[in-house]
Amino acid sequence: MRKKDAKIVVIGGGTGSFALLSALKNHTNNLTALVNMADDGGSTGLLVEELGVLPPGDIRQCLVALSNAPEEVRELFSYRFPRGTLRGHSFGNLFLSAVEKMTRNFNDAVRLAGDVLQIQGRVVPITLDRCELVCKVGRKKVKGQYKISQTAFPTGTRPELFFKKKAQLNPEAKDVIASADMVVIAPGFLYASLAPALLVEGVAEALQNSRAKIVYVCNLVNKPNHTRDYSVHDYVQEIERFTRKNLIDYVLYNTDTPSEQWLKRYALDEEFPVRIDKAEFKIARYDAIGGKFLSHAHQTRNRNDKFIKRSLIRHDGELVAKALLKLL
Amino acid sequence: MRKKDAKIVVIGGGTGSFALLSALKNHTNNLTALVNMADDGGSTGLLVEELGVLPPGDIRQCLVALSNAPEEVRELFSYRFPRGTLRGHSFGNLFLSAVEKMTRNFNDAVRLAGDVLQIQGRVVPITLDRCELVCKVGRKKVKGQYKISQTAFPTGTRPELFFKKKAQLNPEAKDVIASADMVVIAPGFLYASLAPALLVEGVAEALQNSRAKIVYVCNLVNKPNHTRDYSVHDYVQEIERFTRKNLIDYVLYNTDTPSEQWLKRYALDEEFPVRIDKAEFKIARYDAIGGKFLSHAHQTRNRNDKFIKRSLIRHDGELVAKALLKLL
Repeated sequence: MRKKDAKIVVIGGGTGSFALLSALKNHTNNLTALVNMADDGGSTGLLVEELGVLPPGDIRQCLVALSNAPEEVRELFSYRFPRGTLRGHSFGNLFLSAVEKMTRNFNDAVRLAGDVLQIQGRVVPITLDRCELVCKVGRKKVKGQYKISQTAFPTGTRPELFFKKKAQLNPEAKDVIASADMVVIAPGFLYASLAPALLVEGVAEALQNSRAKIVYVCNLVNKPNHTRDYSVHDYVQEIERFTRKNLIDYVLYNTDTPSEQWLKRYALDEEFPVRIDKAEFKIARYDAIGGKFLSHAHQTRNRNDKFIKRSLIRHDGELVAKALLKLL
Repeated sequence: MRKKDAKIVVIGGGTGSFALLSALKNHTNNLTALVNMADDGGSTGLLVEELGVLPPGDIRQCLVALSNAPEEVRELFSYRFPRGTLRGHSFGNLFLSAVEKMTRNFNDAVRLAGDVLQIQGRVVPITLDRCELVCKVGRKKVKGQYKISQTAFPTGTRPELFFKKKAQLNPEAKDVIASADMVVIAPGFLYASLAPALLVEGVAEALQNSRAKIVYVCNLVNKPNHTRDYSVHDYVQEIERFTRKNLIDYVLYNTDTPSEQWLKRYALDEEFPVRIDKAEFKIARYDAIGGKFLSHAHQTRNRNDKFIKRSLIRHDGELVAKALLKLL
């Protein structure tokens, strides 16, 4: 198999998948983003609530990552209205919601947006069911992805996560996983972004039945309220707790050191790099592969992206893509 | 000159220009819609007020009329959100406003929308100034196009109309008029739609200096509160009152009779066909050309168009286009 023809699937959605998808699209002719559908914050949450649509936010980010359209069109999809009753809505979200309402079909919306954005590859919702994530930690029960992301868990506790109503794997997503050569679990918010993708009914079975190599690209930074002091191995353990199966063949973890200045900035928010404990790798079932994966480029995010700080310490998509291709 | 190469300009905007532009685009390679920019009602008004953009509504309708894009894309631009905080906004309006805000340039917005809609021809704002229409009738002063359209004038009075601040002719619009072979004044709301196009500073001079034939396609139905009992000649007089010049070379008026059923429906709202008084034509400076211009097709407006009744008695764009081409 030529590497260009490899069927690569990226599971995730949102900011964490962006760099990876942007880079991978240049290395393979057969790339699919499978997107978490539990987002309920901000513009996306309001559209879901008011119009009864499926959450457009993460889908939009993946579409823009795969886009070969002129810069102005890609920027337009990420553009957020600054004030008034439209405040905070991104244009791409409104696009997806308008088409879904008009055609009553979310797949049509994603396909049409993909045409306008001239995407290379495919973007597929991991489920077409409306799903509300529920989190139990101690005696506390929190509902909804956004609220969960904002909740502080007591140090050392690992939350119980499930959907209020079962969400079924989108049949198209199932086919994509079945025929994949590699499935990449993208870095992302462990309990609010990766969990709702992996908890969808049928995902674990599809991954187990696929002949694809399954690779987790490990997060770079721990969140104080959710993953304080986590090691690479802790992340893998948690992912396999969601899937109830040992599925991961490889883990790519970063060995590069961020600048002092950036580390200090993150430390202000009690955010520290994910721990690397090589002793854990020695007894692990998966292969752990370290590499220098950090981006040292200046910020290139578009002018509407609010997460300026969050993306200082971030993956260089190209470096990760090259490491992934070596595993094929 | 081959008729296909004739440079045709349509002045108007909104519903009145729609059928005409849709038909003319198939008959000439050089069609431009010059669009009234005083719209301040509904979705358009809210965007103007909240975001400080130029009014997108009439521009959008002209873009859709000239579009050769697939039906789903054209429908999308006319799609209106049904509820929630987005209620009433058409997607096309949001598109134009988002691009204008992003690029700080309304021309860019119109051009990009034109690309997405694959338009045949051009759509040019008649002015790039923000303009507020003011209407004095008797001792009453009403501000804003939408409010004026909703105001009842005492029978027999002809309102004084002007802009609060002078609006200058868009230089691009000036060039288009200068090189035109024919300028068509489209049917439309006389005091709320045609007036604000023709009152723009420089329009009358540009029309006078152009070698183009100037044709007015006369309205079909009188409005009880604005143009009760008006004849074709009354409309021409009013248009030439706005331009302060005798400019019109030809008037196309309809001689076909709407169905009894439709006439009854209109009569409920005290709306009656525009009067034809042939005696007036005999002493008129312009040529008045009668023809059967009514559409007898079933309603084909898209599912989001609220003006179902208004468009029962409407022009057949194709029949009008053919009559216009004969005048070249």
